[in-house]
Amino acid sequence: MKTFEPLNVGSMVLANRIMVPAMVTRLSGEDGFVNQDIVDRYVRYAQGEVGLIVVEAMAVHRAKSGPLLRISDDQFIAGLADLVRRIHDTSDSRVVPQIIHFLKVAKSGWRQTVDMLSLADIDRIVEEFGDAVARAREAGFDGAELHSAHAYTLASFVSRTNPRKDDYGGQTLESRLRLIGRIFENLRRKVGDDFPVGVRYNADEFIKDGYTVNDAKLIGLRLAELGAAYLSLSVGGKFEDALHIPGQVPYPYTGYSGDRTMPGDWYPPVTHAHYAAEIKAFLKAHGYDAPVATTGKISDPDDVERLLASGAVDIIGIARGLLADPDWPKKVHNGERDRIVRCDYCNVCKHLDGTHMRVICALWPQGSLQAPLDGLGDAAPQWGGAGANLTASVQNGSALLKWSKAAGAVRYDVHRCDDLGKVSFVDAVKVTRWEDKDILAGRQYRYFVRAYGATGAGSAPSNTVQLDLPAPDYLARTPNREVA
Amino acid sequence: MKTFEPLNVGSMVLANRIMVPAMVTRLSGEDGFVNQDIVDRYVRYAQGEVGLIVVEAMAVHRAKSGPLLRISDDQFIAGLADLVRRIHDTSDSRVVPQIIHFLKVAKSGWRQTVDMLSLADIDRIVEEFGDAVARAREAGFDGAELHSAHAYTLASFVSRTNPRKDDYGGQTLESRLRLIGRIFENLRRKVGDDFPVGVRYNADEFIKDGYTVNDAKLIGLRLAELGAAYLSLSVGGKFEDALHIPGQVPYPYTGYSGDRTMPGDWYPPVTHAHYAAEIKAFLKAHGYDAPVATTGKISDPDDVERLLASGAVDIIGIARGLLADPDWPKKVHNGERDRIVRCDYCNVCKHLDGTHMRVICALWPQGSLQAPLDGLGDAAPQWGGAGANLTASVQNGSALLKWSKAAGAVRYDVHRCDDLGKVSFVDAVKVTRWEDKDILAGRQYRYFVRAYGATGAGSAPSNTVQLDLPAPDYLARTPNREVA
Repeated sequence: MKTFEPLNVGSMVLANRIMVPAMVTRLSGEDGFVNQDIVDRYVRYAQGEVGLIVVEAMAVHRAKSGPLLRISDDQFIAGLADLVRRIHDTSDSRVVPQIIHFLKVAKSGWRQTVDMLSLADIDRIVEEFGDAVARAREAGFDGAELHSAHAYTLASFVSRTNPRKDDYGGQTLESRLRLIGRIFENLRRKVGDDFPVGVRYNADEFIKDGYTVNDAKLIGLRLAELGAAYLSLSVGGKFEDALHIPGQVPYPYTGYSGDRTMPGDWYPPVTHAHYAAEIKAFLKAHGYDAPVATTGKISDPDDVERLLASGAVDIIGIARGLLADPDWPKKVHNGERDRIVRCDYCNVCKHLDGTHMRVICALWPQGSLQAPLDGLGDAAPQWGGAGANLTASVQNGSALLKWSKAAGAVRYDVHRCDDLGKVSFVDAVKVTRWEDKDILAGRQYRYFVRAYGATGAGSAPSNTVQLDLPAPDYLARTPNREVA
Repeated sequence: MKTFEPLNVGSMVLANRIMVPAMVTRLSGEDGFVNQDIVDRYVRYAQGEVGLIVVEAMAVHRAKSGPLLRISDDQFIAGLADLVRRIHDTSDSRVVPQIIHFLKVAKSGWRQTVDMLSLADIDRIVEEFGDAVARAREAGFDGAELHSAHAYTLASFVSRTNPRKDDYGGQTLESRLRLIGRIFENLRRKVGDDFPVGVRYNADEFIKDGYTVNDAKLIGLRLAELGAAYLSLSVGGKFEDALHIPGQVPYPYTGYSGDRTMPGDWYPPVTHAHYAAEIKAFLKAHGYDAPVATTGKISDPDDVERLLASGAVDIIGIARGLLADPDWPKKVHNGERDRIVRCDYCNVCKHLDGTHMRVICALWPQGSLQAPLDGLGDAAPQWGGAGANLTASVQNGSALLKWSKAAGAVRYDVHRCDDLGKVSFVDAVKVTRWEDKDILAGRQYRYFVRAYGATGAGSAPSNTVQLDLPAPDYLARTPNREVA
């Protein structure tokens, strides 16, 4: 499988093409130091043998924020070095920190925008990024990633909505690119040529008057010219359309653009890979080979392999899917796909992040702060003597499923077979009932469930139930109703 | 060319696969009657020999609004019948009215939502649509189109954000589909089986928590079951993210979702066809053959032919491109592509619609209320004795082009050749200067312009200018700058 072929990313070699993109954990304190929970979270990914771990955004500056890692001072290096050592001691996973600068946001809803920065402020940001990358190298990281996506300073400069009127301003694409260009120049002087520095940026801003893939192609070309070790594409996540709940600091994933950053269960899978593929093709046409990563609701091993084998992209970022099951790479590699704890894109993790709560996965056993470790209590759950006893009934145009508890079950996966015979995993739940609201009356659906233990061992499938939903009254009475 | 193969749409035969989608003209009065300007606008499309003309939305009810056609009473039939007769007398173009119901919106920003409607209100809407379709048939239209897209009543019921709690409510997809289902049942009783009734609906709502193509596939399947003659896909255009300018009625194309409905010049071409293609494939898999139309920044004849020849979709809707040049179908058919007045997606037309001004195209000759008629004054403009004298200079990271006037020119098309040798039409302007803000310094670009007369006859190309933009200072100083 292409998925498990090694990949050179600058001077770093990834053992496979799977990446944990930066995900806020809210496990650190406000002091910004690495703590044991943080170490446990990232070592857990290394245990799963993922190719590249991007550690959650750490600030290059001292600005006040919620729970957030820091790389803004030499005092943070020791903790970061320990984190890196622990990861490297665990497996071949490579690890880079995501490095971020952000502007001020207030509970009143006021926020600082890039046009409020003086040229001295800009010079300071340039130095802060360079110093932070130097600290990353000193801490032993395999590289670093600049955060130029979503609602943060670098992305706001690159944005098509950048309101500045000067050489760093929004009138031309060149001006918008000036800050990140100067940052690369500066960091190269500070860390030399060999330290791989990638960039995460938006393929599409998904806001009114925001940039689209048209600009993202040119932005990618400039980043390649600057020697970016890899380009990691995200989308959206902007303040411009964020909700403001009075008394709360606006969270840039509460608007439509935030829906796109972490597409929920009502989005199709592999939501944004076509943007990354278009950018990759554009770079190739210009003679640049920098690896391109895509993210956005990808976790099916077949989708991953298809995207990689076609050459559309080079790295697949799996965020929520790896939070749910850090052992995804190891399980796929070992032919144990059936044991993957499958993300159902319920976005409880996103909600926890938005409310500054410690981020966990709702599919983990109750009370766990980390994904359960393979090898501990992974016996398959057993249906009781009466079996799963799955039943289905129609309720207001939806299908209501109920079943019995299985001994040792942590969760249940629901599978649906549609009228064309296509079987899909449709949801994962901890209770023994589920409602299907996304079906059409007048058609036939079948369902079964399976119970799973903490680390992914599955029970036998339940009995299969078939539901013939009566056609709606108006359809039966419509004269020229077509019948396929 | 597949583009010019006839297509059966229910009992109606289209001479080709090009459609004018419904576009507000603001040419009617508030009385809702067809007037001479309206007749002229639509006859002009028939002169261009487009396959299907969808006349702008006409209201099924009496609610107050700005300039808008009406089909809410028998008194409107005579004017509509005259419009249809004039179109049919002109060419083989088929013509259907788009039929709309909308809820109340106030200058305060308040708007009526579907949960404020009683069951009696819903029953009334069902009857109003049926009566309107019957009037369309009486007026001689070849069919009708229900408007279930954007911010209007039918779309608000189908929306994933529908807040009702009853059988017409948002809890299940079935409930959201109930109103349009009952409307089809009712209209079939009123107009029989043979009158083709298509539906325009959103492939994606492009709002927070809005539906995506996942639901759009199932919605399309239900519409096919109901015997919809064709499905015409649009996107976005919602009130949920519309700007509210105090003292003005909110206009549902002012937010991000409205950016998507009429993608501007910063969007890639053929922005939304992949959604329509996915829906078409889903319908086919279920045995339904209803023609599917796509729209959204399509006007290049090669893009049109590619989409049709591949079977991805059956009909191409060209809105702004046909406003700019209603003779697009005739010119492409006659091998006169070079004479097409090319839309540059400046969206002046969108802005006129939003401010209730009469909608024209900015590329037409000054003062024209309709597209200039082929055969009248279509001599090619001539550069003066000194030639076009095109010059280019660098200005703040952008390229500034200037050139001389050409005698008889109505507009100038700017063409750019990028560093890979790809030549593109990049803008159309009425003045003799243009600034290119979307280029990367350090690369080489070439430009030429052509002057055009009112109906599309072009001058000789200008001289070509080459611009070598010096690389930005930071790039030259970045040590490991990659050079392709």
